[in-house]
Amino acid sequence: MRASVLMAPGVIELQERPTPRPARDEVLVRVSSVGVCGSDAHYFRHGRIGEYVVESPLILGHEAAGRIVAVGSEVDGERIGQRVSIEPQHPDPTSEESRSGRYNLCPHMKFYATPPVDGALCEFVTIQSSFAHRIPDSISDDAAALFEPLSVGIAAVRKAGVVAGAHVLIAGAGPVGLVTLQVVRAFGATRVVVSDPDPSRRTAATRFGAHEVLDPLTADVRALRVDAFIDASGAPRAVVDGMHAVRPAGTVVLVGMGADELSMPVSLLQTRELVLTGVFRYANTWPTARELVEAGSVDLDSMVTHRFTLDQVADALAADRIEGSIKAVVDVAGR
Amino acid sequence: MRASVLMAPGVIELQERPTPRPARDEVLVRVSSVGVCGSDAHYFRHGRIGEYVVESPLILGHEAAGRIVAVGSEVDGERIGQRVSIEPQHPDPTSEESRSGRYNLCPHMKFYATPPVDGALCEFVTIQSSFAHRIPDSISDDAAALFEPLSVGIAAVRKAGVVAGAHVLIAGAGPVGLVTLQVVRAFGATRVVVSDPDPSRRTAATRFGAHEVLDPLTADVRALRVDAFIDASGAPRAVVDGMHAVRPAGTVVLVGMGADELSMPVSLLQTRELVLTGVFRYANTWPTARELVEAGSVDLDSMVTHRFTLDQVADALAADRIEGSIKAVVDVAGR
Amino acid sequence: MRASVLMAPGVIELQERPTPRPARDEVLVRVSSVGVCGSDAHYFRHGRIGEYVVESPLILGHEAAGRIVAVGSEVDGERIGQRVSIEPQHPDPTSEESRSGRYNLCPHMKFYATPPVDGALCEFVTIQSSFAHRIPDSISDDAAALFEPLSVGIAAVRKAGVVAGAHVLIAGAGPVGLVTLQVVRAFGATRVVVSDPDPSRRTAATRFGAHEVLDPLTADVRALRVDAFIDASGAPRAVVDGMHAVRPAGTVVLVGMGADELSMPVSLLQTRELVLTGVFRYANTWPTARELVEAGSVDLDSMVTHRFTLDQVADALAADRIEGSIKAVVDVAGR
Amino acid sequence: MRASVLMAPGVIELQERPTPRPARDEVLVRVSSVGVCGSDAHYFRHGRIGEYVVESPLILGHEAAGRIVAVGSEVDGERIGQRVSIEPQHPDPTSEESRSGRYNLCPHMKFYATPPVDGALCEFVTIQSSFAHRIPDSISDDAAALFEPLSVGIAAVRKAGVVAGAHVLIAGAGPVGLVTLQVVRAFGATRVVVSDPDPSRRTAATRFGAHEVLDPLTADVRALRVDAFIDASGAPRAVVDGMHAVRPAGTVVLVGMGADELSMPVSLLQTRELVLTGVFRYANTWPTARELVEAGSVDLDSMVTHRFTLDQVADALAADRIEGSIKAVVDVAGR
Repeated sequence: MRASVLMAPGVIELQERPTPRPARDEVLVRVSSVGVCGSDAHYFRHGRIGEYVVESPLILGHEAAGRIVAVGSEVDGERIGQRVSIEPQHPDPTSEESRSGRYNLCPHMKFYATPPVDGALCEFVTIQSSFAHRIPDSISDDAAALFEPLSVGIAAVRKAGVVAGAHVLIAGAGPVGLVTLQVVRAFGATRVVVSDPDPSRRTAATRFGAHEVLDPLTADVRALRVDAFIDASGAPRAVVDGMHAVRPAGTVVLVGMGADELSMPVSLLQTRELVLTGVFRYANTWPTARELVEAGSVDLDSMVTHRFTLDQVADALAADRIEGSIKAVVDVAGR
Repeated sequence: MRASVLMAPGVIELQERPTPRPARDEVLVRVSSVGVCGSDAHYFRHGRIGEYVVESPLILGHEAAGRIVAVGSEVDGERIGQRVSIEPQHPDPTSEESRSGRYNLCPHMKFYATPPVDGALCEFVTIQSSFAHRIPDSISDDAAALFEPLSVGIAAVRKAGVVAGAHVLIAGAGPVGLVTLQVVRAFGATRVVVSDPDPSRRTAATRFGAHEVLDPLTADVRALRVDAFIDASGAPRAVVDGMHAVRPAGTVVLVGMGADELSMPVSLLQTRELVLTGVFRYANTWPTARELVEAGSVDLDSMVTHRFTLDQVADALAADRIEGSIKAVVDVAGR
Repeated sequence: MRASVLMAPGVIELQERPTPRPARDEVLVRVSSVGVCGSDAHYFRHGRIGEYVVESPLILGHEAAGRIVAVGSEVDGERIGQRVSIEPQHPDPTSEESRSGRYNLCPHMKFYATPPVDGALCEFVTIQSSFAHRIPDSISDDAAALFEPLSVGIAAVRKAGVVAGAHVLIAGAGPVGLVTLQVVRAFGATRVVVSDPDPSRRTAATRFGAHEVLDPLTADVRALRVDAFIDASGAPRAVVDGMHAVRPAGTVVLVGMGADELSMPVSLLQTRELVLTGVFRYANTWPTARELVEAGSVDLDSMVTHRFTLDQVADALAADRIEGSIKAVVDVAGR
Repeated sequence: MRASVLMAPGVIELQERPTPRPARDEVLVRVSSVGVCGSDAHYFRHGRIGEYVVESPLILGHEAAGRIVAVGSEVDGERIGQRVSIEPQHPDPTSEESRSGRYNLCPHMKFYATPPVDGALCEFVTIQSSFAHRIPDSISDDAAALFEPLSVGIAAVRKAGVVAGAHVLIAGAGPVGLVTLQVVRAFGATRVVVSDPDPSRRTAATRFGAHEVLDPLTADVRALRVDAFIDASGAPRAVVDGMHAVRPAGTVVLVGMGADELSMPVSLLQTRELVLTGVFRYANTWPTARELVEAGSVDLDSMVTHRFTLDQVADALAADRIEGSIKAVVDVAGR
């Protein structure tokens, strides 16, 4: 099969690789569409993310959809032919974390496109069968691929405890911020404020349903009073200002990955009894993702601003720097 | 002031009563609109609901809105002139239940139109100031009055744990069922099934957003698989059938008041670990009600099918028997 | 190997059976001790429990401990020699329920001694490796076997939401009631009332830490006011009386299996907003069980009142009818 | 009455003050015992805590017990003569926070000994009647006074979600750390590790039930693996090290007040999905405090290491610097 391989920082090579064979509980998926994530671009540019270092050639891409073309010995053959969205993680189902319903925190996790595990920017991938989620024909390949970032948003909004009538602040209107915004609205929030210093991103936020957009460099973010604040920016100032905007007993969820350490207003956290947490990927989000997309509560297709073929992956990985870009997708099936 | 008084079962009399004076922490409200509840009709017809017996003349009506015209000594005079929705309960704020945020369960509760406490079918009422909730001009008097049944729906949906993407069954498409349906949708449910044996009520349910409607006498309700079931019918068969429709670890909330005792499928409840509870009025729902109505997530005005004046209260109390009736409102201010 | 087999109601036969071989993710355990559960006795006497019918010879017993003597191909060989307590369930780890942390509700469950799955009253059993929980030497074989009923108690107390300072009513002082009592105390309840019509059981309850014991036939159970009520009796009157004893917003957990249908005071449930649920086995309880037993918070050894050998299983299954009996154990290893 | 008044930093004066009169919903309490809190000592030494500045003479002391000697017009006269523990806060019961059960976060709070509100180091105080909690004769005056710091511990342990079988790390073995330790044990934790650089405090921790004590300057705190970490030290290093000791999805509760800002390991918080929060006083803790003390689960009397009279308050406020001191109490009644 053809695979797009990261050989070194900045160097992508299209190679022939053996088509993988599904293990007994796995399915083999012919990849149709793969979304490009900021982490892919980061590996491409820097060869590492924190402690994760690309030490040997790596296939990037973990936002993927496709069609099942073969199954392992323990998997129902009826699944062959199904269109699926791939949940790109492989936890150990017997770990304490998996048994408790938090398989995203399993210490034995293997995750697509996280060194040394290969990702989906290639023609075929394998995945444990229950992580290949069937999708209906009404959902496009691109949307199915973007169930992955959508899942990050769902995980964040669940932890934020957003319910109907809530007021929510989201910092950052990149792809994660925009998908989180849509999820927040799907959960019934009646006032969603999105802050981003980039005017074109603020425009996008308005288009995806923000009730109000702010430039955090000029607006008084701290004067807001919201039930929940979700940071999708990773910017220290955004985190601190956002915390000041949360009402007593409100929630703060950190999605954006930034520095390892951050100076936090702990006295504020204590006197308001804020509840602060973060999300690390997601668990049990795909069924919700499907519900929201099928119901039209979340629009993923409109987030795709750029499309590439498998031999244009280097361009796709740089597309986040194009003005007005939200999400680039690699159309693997289309060649 | 003029007051519509229940003198005996079936006997309503328009009387002159002294205008009440607000206690130091109360406001005096000139009533504009009062919704008629099934419990009002029940008191009118039978003179009692369970252990609550009308033993002396009683003013009915607990779904009320109006305008503040005077305030007690401890209340900010600036409130005079405000349009308000009345939360018709007066708990003891120092009881253990109130201190824990469950003031609806306060054992010292005084509640409008529950013997011997008078209600709102009159020109002026008093209420503790924090239970007179300011409403914006964009919300009508009728809608403000109907914050009360809306609150029942909000309380039920909170207890049901409905979140975005949930599948929900509601039994009964009377006023409570219809408002609960709207709240369920506002919380992001993506499949809401409403059952009612009355075709006109099923039509109403469709109009208010049900994805599917069923006649429980002919459909196989038990074959559904929902995350939550909310009973707004009080019908024993509906409760039992609905419980069978709930997935393992799902929730069941009983809103409709029916018989004191009910034969329940406890073995089913155990093997599925269903969580069953009920709602008794509501606490801390008015701010959410306002959010949902202002955002347009819930449409209360369209629920008003019949309007009456203060001297037509007997007719208003009988209006629930009119074919196609959903909610009757008494326009107190209109005269 | 030797196995004690239920051939027909009332007929137990000691047979030679082939020693099972562990599948790749399983361990082979030489059984040391097996507790006798009420369900074992019920199958022995009646050949069925509800829809579960013994249609072919069945090995009973699901409360078991032993030592690992062999492992499947994927299991760490270091585990051979470990003393373990067996969690006698085999869910499908990829089911939606398992992925959500509720594997006890997995629809594909295979459970020891539930027809047609054999149990542990034999010399060797296999179990998925993560369901064979290592125990320290300080815990006896009998106690390790009784982690299973202890787990039922832990599951019930978790669902009841018992915390330090709580007042709790437990109906029924059989083995499940007594172990639940101990768990309730371990969770910090400061007043635990146990009701049972049998004086010797009430004595046992006092010995295991009840602050107060009641004869439900003469005492006014409904006059109590507790935070949580756990039914371990399955008796309709106990359930109804117990519900009346629960404070507003309190919890009711049904552990005891009784009739399929039960007449419930739903009006009470609604006006007090009681939260009612049941337990069906348990999930993620073994680590807690080990903590509580090792810390001495729960005493399982003292619950063993009768001991039998593998060729005395018929007697063991009838031991619940011996006056003063709490728990019978079959000492499989001792022969 | 006699009152001990803070005139300026380091200057305490015994003055005659008029005995206060209870408002209509208040009681008048003759003070018996008052515990000295670190915040009292801080006001005494520095005249301020953060934004709270002592600008006029202030009576310190907010850990108080006594006997009701008079009641306001709306309070049941039967309460006269009752021994009570004082919950030293006066929220507005109609605020949104109070109505939601979080009255400690009420923006209109008046709190004893927080400028400009006087505290309890005097012969008589008034308090809203439901904040004067009756205590039985089995509880001493000192213990009743120390319900206040006990409440801080209860609030922290509730937020930490400690349940039976939990492993917990507590940083700091001062009075709050020691009382939290006892509460953690009362909630059923089976392994409690306490860290403190002071050997005498570690000895005290062992005496009050720590399973293990550590010197954080030499031990590898980060190598622990606990379910919850409660900081009662306010030391930046303790907070950061403690967070590293928490298992995935575990909780971190900050009780100790330290700097306004703190450099936090946010990447760790995200990848483990830790839940971090703080406590600001307490709500609804007195009933639990009474249960735990009456049951003997918590021993407050043994925490009192030094006793003073009302004319020795300056010494009492300095007693925290005495080697081996845990808690100083002012015996107001004893003169």
